[in-house]
Parts: sequence; C-alpha cells; structure tokens
Amino acid sequence: MAPLPPRSGDAVFANIEHVNAELFTLTYGAIVRQLLTDLEEVEEVNKQLDQMGYNIGIRLIDEFLAKSNVSGCANFKETADVIAKVGFKMFLGVSATVTNWDAEGTSCSLVLEDNPLVDFVELPDTCQGLCYCNILSGVIRGALEMVSMKTEVTWVRDMLQGDDVYELRVKLLKQVPEEYPYKDDE
Amino acid sequence: MAPLPPRSGDAVFANIEHVNAELFTLTYGAIVRQLLTDLEEVEEVNKQLDQMGYNIGIRLIDEFLAKSNVSGCANFKETADVIAKVGFKMFLGVSATVTNWDAEGTSCSLVLEDNPLVDFVELPDTCQGLCYCNILSGVIRGALEMVSMKTEVTWVRDMLQGDDVYELRVKLLKQVPEEYPYKDDE
Repeated sequence: MAPLPPRSGDAVFANIEHVNAELFTLTYGAIVRQLLTDLEEVEEVNKQLDQMGYNIGIRLIDEFLAKSNVSGCANFKETADVIAKVGFKMFLGVSATVTNWDAEGTSCSLVLEDNPLVDFVELPDTCQGLCYCNILSGVIRGALEMVSMKTEVTWVRDMLQGDDVYELRVKLLKQVPEEYPYKDDE
Repeated sequence: MAPLPPRSGDAVFANIEHVNAELFTLTYGAIVRQLLTDLEEVEEVNKQLDQMGYNIGIRLIDEFLAKSNVSGCANFKETADVIAKVGFKMFLGVSATVTNWDAEGTSCSLVLEDNPLVDFVELPDTCQGLCYCNILSGVIRGALEMVSMKTEVTWVRDMLQGDDVYELRVKLLKQVPEEYPYKDDE
C-alpha cells in the first residue's frame, strides 16, 4: 500500500483531541510559578523547564508521526518547515515562520507572533532573565533527538522581555544515523 | 437587549481556542512528577495540586462566564448540571454525569468515564494515595467560590487507584450572598 500523503497542520489539528487553550495557559503558568518558588534561581528554572520540555518532546514525537503522516524529511530545511507549519499548528494551534537561515543550512529561526503559552502573562521585575517559554525549546530538542537530530534550541527574542516577536534559534549539531532505542521484536 | 441564551458545551467548545490534548496531558504529568520530586510526601503533593487548581479556577471562571452565556443558576442542582455538561466539555472536551444526590440537594457526584488528564498514566506503587487529578477538584472549588459558593470537593473513585470511573464528590458548604471582591468603580 502506498504511504498516505502528509497532512497539513490545519487538517491534523482538526482531527485530534483538544483541551481549552486558557486552561493550558493557566496550568503552564502554575508550573512556572511553582518552579520559581521551589528553585528560586531564574537560571535553574530555565534549565528545569527545558528538561521538562525535553521529556515531553521525546514522547510527543510519536503522536506527531502517527497523526501527521510525515514519514521523513529530506534535509534539515524540510524538517524546520514541518516543525513550523505542522508541529506548532498541531500542538498549539498556531504556525511559525522559518527565517534567518545560515549559509550552511544548519541553523535557522522559528518566529512566532502568537503564542498561547503567554496569554495574560506579565513578568514581575524579579523575573529578569526568565525564559518563560523554555518548555517549548525543550520539546523541539527532545522530539528532534528521537528522529536522530541533535540540536541546540535557544530563545533569541521574547515578547515578555520586550521584543516584538518570539524567535527560537534551532541549530543542527549532529545528524546521527537512524538508530532506535529498542528493537521491534523486543 | 435581552441576554443571550446559554450555549451548550459543544457549541462553546467549538468556539474557543484549543491546544492538543496530549500536550496538555504530558505537561500536567510533568507538574505532578516535579511536585513528587520536590515535596516527596504524597499528601503534600495532593494539597499542592488542589491549591494550584484553586488558583486556576478563580481565573477560569471569567472565561467560563464570558463564553458560555451562563448568567446565574437557580439552585445548586442547576449549578452541578452546568459544571458537568458545559464546564467539563468547554475545558476538557468531555462531559460528566451528575448523580448520587443527597436528600437535601446540597451534595452530589460528578462521574467521569473519560478523563484526558490521565491518558497513558500509570502510577508506580510508591504513589499509593496520590490524587493524581487533584488539580480538577481545586479548579471546581476555586471557580464556585467566585460565584459565591463555598464547597468541599473530593475524589471518591479514581481509575488510577483501580476504580471503574472517576467520581468527584461536590458538597455545598455555604452559599454566601453575592459579594464581589472589588467594586465596579474602583
């Protein structure tokens, strides 16, 4: 049987189960507040959010592959487009723009103008340096690692820190040969 | 102008912003894991989840009232029906059944057969006594407090603890006279 064609972000989003975005936003806010209380140092909170995101990403990739019919990308440029147009749409209901490619085609930016994680969020002065959305960079890093791409994902613009958009820099560090964490017959 | 008629849970759910349910489930799982690591005692985790839910509920009620066109309930029975049919549907995409009323009409159960918070969740033996979904009871308690109802909300059946459904017991403790936390002209 021929493989099914990849589905658009909108088509995938329409066919999956959802919850209310505000409930998600407030729940995420509760995590960040909890971490700020428990860990105190903003730098530690950033690390922990990234790690939580990584743990989510390595699981979420399965849902992504199952629902999107995306079976493999020819190169990193295609991967970035799929994350921006299908991945973001499928999970958060918004799309990102891919831009600022470097000459080697191994580093680009994902720009978000709308970000449901931060609705109604205002950071107090004590949160200077907090990467509020660091869970997202972790999710991307974790998900890509499961499809054999080691990446570095960092925020370079952040509306909560006064920038006009959200910009995530994604840098491909190493493309490892396809290698599953377990064998099919185990 | 006559007030708009209340909208059904399905109608409200179709007209609000959503995120992917699995992303929400995994994010919620990350909170619970974080609290278990930080607080160690299951009883403390239950308390903290309930408190987080309460803080979410006192904000989420605004979204609920704005989107559902529900303007006021004649009595606690009507309130329970609205939570089960409109509230759960609007925020989690599932409905609950209202049952087991006491003779006074001040205490009932909300029964959930489907609960997106727990998809793929299995509790290790070390989590005996964990009320994994305690955030939900907190949300209901917080939201009702903002519409002048002091309640006690507790889990009496929990599929993660081996029961066949989720059952939340909601007990009306006190209906306080309508009283806003601030005046309109402040």
